[in-house]
Amino acid sequence: MTTATSIFTPVEKDLSILIDNLTSLVQAQHPILGAAAEHLFTAGGKRIRPAIVLLVSRATMKGDDLTPRHRRLAEITEMIHTASLVHDDVVDEAELRRQVATVNSLFGNRVAVLAGDFLFAQSSWYLANLDNLQVVKLLSEVIRDFAEGEIQQGLSCFDTNVSLEKYLQKSYFKTASLIANSAKAAAILSDAGEGIANQIYSYGRNIGLAFQIVDDILDFTSPTEVLGKPAGSDLACGNLTAPVLFAMEEKPSLSILIEREFSEEGDLDQALALVYDSNGIEKARDLAHQHSQLALKELQYLPSCPATDSLRELTDYVLSRIK
Amino acid sequence: MTTATSIFTPVEKDLSILIDNLTSLVQAQHPILGAAAEHLFTAGGKRIRPAIVLLVSRATMKGDDLTPRHRRLAEITEMIHTASLVHDDVVDEAELRRQVATVNSLFGNRVAVLAGDFLFAQSSWYLANLDNLQVVKLLSEVIRDFAEGEIQQGLSCFDTNVSLEKYLQKSYFKTASLIANSAKAAAILSDAGEGIANQIYSYGRNIGLAFQIVDDILDFTSPTEVLGKPAGSDLACGNLTAPVLFAMEEKPSLSILIEREFSEEGDLDQALALVYDSNGIEKARDLAHQHSQLALKELQYLPSCPATDSLRELTDYVLSRIK
Repeated sequence: MTTATSIFTPVEKDLSILIDNLTSLVQAQHPILGAAAEHLFTAGGKRIRPAIVLLVSRATMKGDDLTPRHRRLAEITEMIHTASLVHDDVVDEAELRRQVATVNSLFGNRVAVLAGDFLFAQSSWYLANLDNLQVVKLLSEVIRDFAEGEIQQGLSCFDTNVSLEKYLQKSYFKTASLIANSAKAAAILSDAGEGIANQIYSYGRNIGLAFQIVDDILDFTSPTEVLGKPAGSDLACGNLTAPVLFAMEEKPSLSILIEREFSEEGDLDQALALVYDSNGIEKARDLAHQHSQLALKELQYLPSCPATDSLRELTDYVLSRIK
Repeated sequence: MTTATSIFTPVEKDLSILIDNLTSLVQAQHPILGAAAEHLFTAGGKRIRPAIVLLVSRATMKGDDLTPRHRRLAEITEMIHTASLVHDDVVDEAELRRQVATVNSLFGNRVAVLAGDFLFAQSSWYLANLDNLQVVKLLSEVIRDFAEGEIQQGLSCFDTNVSLEKYLQKSYFKTASLIANSAKAAAILSDAGEGIANQIYSYGRNIGLAFQIVDDILDFTSPTEVLGKPAGSDLACGNLTAPVLFAMEEKPSLSILIEREFSEEGDLDQALALVYDSNGIEKARDLAHQHSQLALKELQYLPSCPATDSLRELTDYVLSRIK
């Protein structure tokens, strides 16, 4: 099986520079946040977002090496992502993420809200200093989409009328917007032309959606030890994802259990059994596959190079997590 | 006594348009946040920040009326301010602000973190769409300063070695930076020239510092009913402000009480008595006066007009709150 690490070979050094820069930036400025930052930037994330920015940068750059602005854009992307995770964990009162204790659980809500605000603030300052208004607009759109996505998720809890379209929109806000817009911004910093920039945006949008759908499938299929939380925890808190939306079409009784918010003993177990007994997970897998194919198609006009190869392999890798 | 309302006469209509716009913007997008927003934008704030932006805009504008970008800048200023208040209240676990229940106490941390993020996100999007990189940089600096100020305040709790200089820096980050940078941005949108823009920045910086010092004095001198919290609450939680820093120079025993974090019965009352018995409050008042005079001096090159008169009167009004 391909691993994320082998796909990222063309930007391996770039990624390790990035992590060093981010950690020392936060630590130098704030000893208190330093502990939180170290924790954040080294806690086993796969760095898929900055890796895509760096790969797009390498696939589209004109000169021999990345410019400092390309590197800075990748850092901004990881900072925005990390800030949103920290605030998400406060909002969800989460204790674990990727099997590691969250900032709020270790340091309290106070430090977690501040650390998130600091990262958002620092990223918006870096962003302004890239001196490119189009890039500022793309990334400020992302920050707005995050807030929008979190709010929509809150509003649609246990709502069995949520359509697949609405689910995909929410997934775009939560996950795909950052990938699509930061990748497009990398193409813009390379002066790759509008056509390429838009294809890269579409690549990011579709791989981002595939990525989120796969994550939502893993919430049902991964063992508890891997998730760090019980399987079906999205369903338990009323977050209706692709497998559930498909399963509801086959099993009308599932909607009833959800609508009464699993208020009776055994409701949740019964609901999970209905999802596993349906074709929901398989149909969700097909949906993820469709989006990864759409992403792949957008790469045909990029020059052949190791970075383009990696972007292509990534569309397979995303799916391999559920094979 | 001059009231804030009479000073704001030249921009009274502008301010009421602004509040309507902000409330309907948030409400239209999010019914859940709507309640929080209504609460936020109508809950008795004095709107000093957007008023200064609007007054500077009117004092420097070339045409007959404000441009939509001037108005948008004032809205951004109030949104950033409001977002920071909402997150501050989460961080401080505050239940009341200006005698009104806080968003976190009414709607929970979840909605409060989201509402703050939404307002920051919306303001950074509006900001990017002003299409002026210099303005984007000025305001992104403010958001960074807020995070910095909150963190410094957390780090310096009960630290009796804090210098007056450090206190002023923290006050700049927390309060004066937004006023100074948004006022300067208004002058830039008016094409007022670099000299005027820098004087306006200095006006904002100094009136902002005076404003914060006065607030810190009021924490000692206002009755509990007005503050919505007991007098001396800054001191109680280890936030050492101007009156305390001056009082410590006269009363060495005050430092001892602070350093042991009021751990013994009666410590806090004794500390408050020492502050009242010293010249700390009077010296803090002198410091606020100095900064308001510095602010006044910066206005001499602005054209004579009702808006300039209001900016001038504001330097007196700030102090009148402690007369």
